[in-house]
Amino acid sequence: MRSVKAYAAPSATESLEPITIDRRDLQRTDVLIEIKYSGVCHSDVNHARSLWQAEKYPLVPGHEITGIVADVGSEVTKHKIGDRVAVGCMVDACGKCANCRQGEEQYCLKGITLTYGSIDRFGQPTQGGYSTHIVVTEDFVLKIPEGLGLDVTAPLLCAGITTFWPLRHWGAGPGKRVAIVGLGGLGHVAVKIAHVMGAEVTVLSRSPSKRGDAFRLGADHHYATSDPDTFEKLANSSDLVVNTVSSAMDLDAYMSLLGLGGVMANLGAPTEPMSINAWSILRNRRVYTGSLIGSLSDTQDMLDFCAEHNIGADVETIAIDQINDAFERLLASDVRYRFVIEIASLR
Amino acid sequence: MRSVKAYAAPSATESLEPITIDRRDLQRTDVLIEIKYSGVCHSDVNHARSLWQAEKYPLVPGHEITGIVADVGSEVTKHKIGDRVAVGCMVDACGKCANCRQGEEQYCLKGITLTYGSIDRFGQPTQGGYSTHIVVTEDFVLKIPEGLGLDVTAPLLCAGITTFWPLRHWGAGPGKRVAIVGLGGLGHVAVKIAHVMGAEVTVLSRSPSKRGDAFRLGADHHYATSDPDTFEKLANSSDLVVNTVSSAMDLDAYMSLLGLGGVMANLGAPTEPMSINAWSILRNRRVYTGSLIGSLSDTQDMLDFCAEHNIGADVETIAIDQINDAFERLLASDVRYRFVIEIASLR
Repeated sequence: MRSVKAYAAPSATESLEPITIDRRDLQRTDVLIEIKYSGVCHSDVNHARSLWQAEKYPLVPGHEITGIVADVGSEVTKHKIGDRVAVGCMVDACGKCANCRQGEEQYCLKGITLTYGSIDRFGQPTQGGYSTHIVVTEDFVLKIPEGLGLDVTAPLLCAGITTFWPLRHWGAGPGKRVAIVGLGGLGHVAVKIAHVMGAEVTVLSRSPSKRGDAFRLGADHHYATSDPDTFEKLANSSDLVVNTVSSAMDLDAYMSLLGLGGVMANLGAPTEPMSINAWSILRNRRVYTGSLIGSLSDTQDMLDFCAEHNIGADVETIAIDQINDAFERLLASDVRYRFVIEIASLR
Repeated sequence: MRSVKAYAAPSATESLEPITIDRRDLQRTDVLIEIKYSGVCHSDVNHARSLWQAEKYPLVPGHEITGIVADVGSEVTKHKIGDRVAVGCMVDACGKCANCRQGEEQYCLKGITLTYGSIDRFGQPTQGGYSTHIVVTEDFVLKIPEGLGLDVTAPLLCAGITTFWPLRHWGAGPGKRVAIVGLGGLGHVAVKIAHVMGAEVTVLSRSPSKRGDAFRLGADHHYATSDPDTFEKLANSSDLVVNTVSSAMDLDAYMSLLGLGGVMANLGAPTEPMSINAWSILRNRRVYTGSLIGSLSDTQDMLDFCAEHNIGADVETIAIDQINDAFERLLASDVRYRFVIEIASLR
């Protein structure tokens, strides 16, 4: 066991504070990573505060991790000391269920082992990236291609793959009209990716305040959803709507944006159920769907794609002792567009 | 103008009764059809009784029409006197909107002209197949291949195309696990089609009473949805769920049947909105979608497919004066599986 420094929520109602946690001894296929950057995802707040479910405490958040390989187990073949690597939302899966066998371990029917907040195969709680080091089995460690900075890469491990998957799967590209709903951590990466894929990109955000950013990030159009005319103007106009908003929404209104065979890909997970009218899908034979991150293979593809097109997240780098303030600012949408913790500040 | 015999609802609250209606003089591209059979669709009841919207009366229902060409306009090239032909749910569309230009006139953005209950391009109300003759522009008249009986073909024009489209589009075939929800007019044809497409077919109906029929029609499995264990047993087990039930349902329960990337194709149009939990689509990246009949080209494909595989509807033939009783029996699900009016009884 190795004791390492971390920041943890001691309970659902307290601020994050310094702590020392144990990382397991390297197993034969394990990789020890010296963490350099850890992105701050909206779901970190939800988990830290037990907003989705009751969590075990202390809880160390962080599932957008980049760093350098510091040591490897005796049978590791994919990574070597000094490699630039990354870890996303999952660190293990059963490997045997129908979904794992199809290479889509993110949908493991036994439930994936989350990077934090799960119990691992050794019976220990997993702890995330707000920490100096992490130990992960090699299959769940991604390679960071040359040219991508470790800071701007960190958010790609959740925000990047979550938006890359539906954009690629549902065919964003030349001639396709893609609307991105919400311009936050996920949305701003989605705009960059959809743009370089060659799609005609429309950003839909609450107010006109992010209009300039939308265009700078690669959008062709921007509309404010607070303008009552927006939905009428854009009716039947999109091939793909990628919804990055995590709160419940008027599904029928957003579905009405889709043209023939159009797809709404929902990425958020509001806790309350939503209402949908059957005519919202019958008209134009529309599709309502969603997805969770991507497989390891998809995630590596995303990193390679982002390196090729020089796409990183727009980040605001913080020291670890700013994390509680960052949580509050994140809840107030006061970040453009992702906080990334410089883990050097924790050593 | 030509006066022809028909049966009409005089109002939303009265029984259907004999009436004489006018059919327009043949325009250059029109076909006059002597109707032989007219299927009785659940939506006929909804329209006759203004259950979906306020209708204009008198209203002659019927959009599952088979017959013989009795006369043609001067420029008709696709059909000739004596041909066996069919008419489904639509008799016209704008031909110019984005959807019509893609050959999917059933989603005409200006609204299709329904076979009954619409206003046609001449400003006249359309009247349906519970009638001795109908006049339809040639593009909206389908050809009935050799070998298909006019009686068992009639229901294919709505029940057949409505189920054929999602089965073909979403890839029902060898190695695919397809569940058909509801064994009525649509469901029984869906089972036949999915079976000959080579899929592994599961029928889900309320009670075990139709179990024998399900297997006779081609199902491999049958489960009663009244059995609380059914949804647990079948969790994550289907590639495609075709929902033929027209009332509101527990969407989350039915979505839970879908495995990785599975698709729920909804064909019914309940008036009340339904509730859906985001996790129902996020898990297994499931798809919730629906469709309305099919294009003219799809419908011809369906008729050709059914002829090739000798698929007709299971019908109970009635005389026109039994129609009011048939409406009541249909509402009580007391028909196996489609009433078809022998229009000879109206002459």
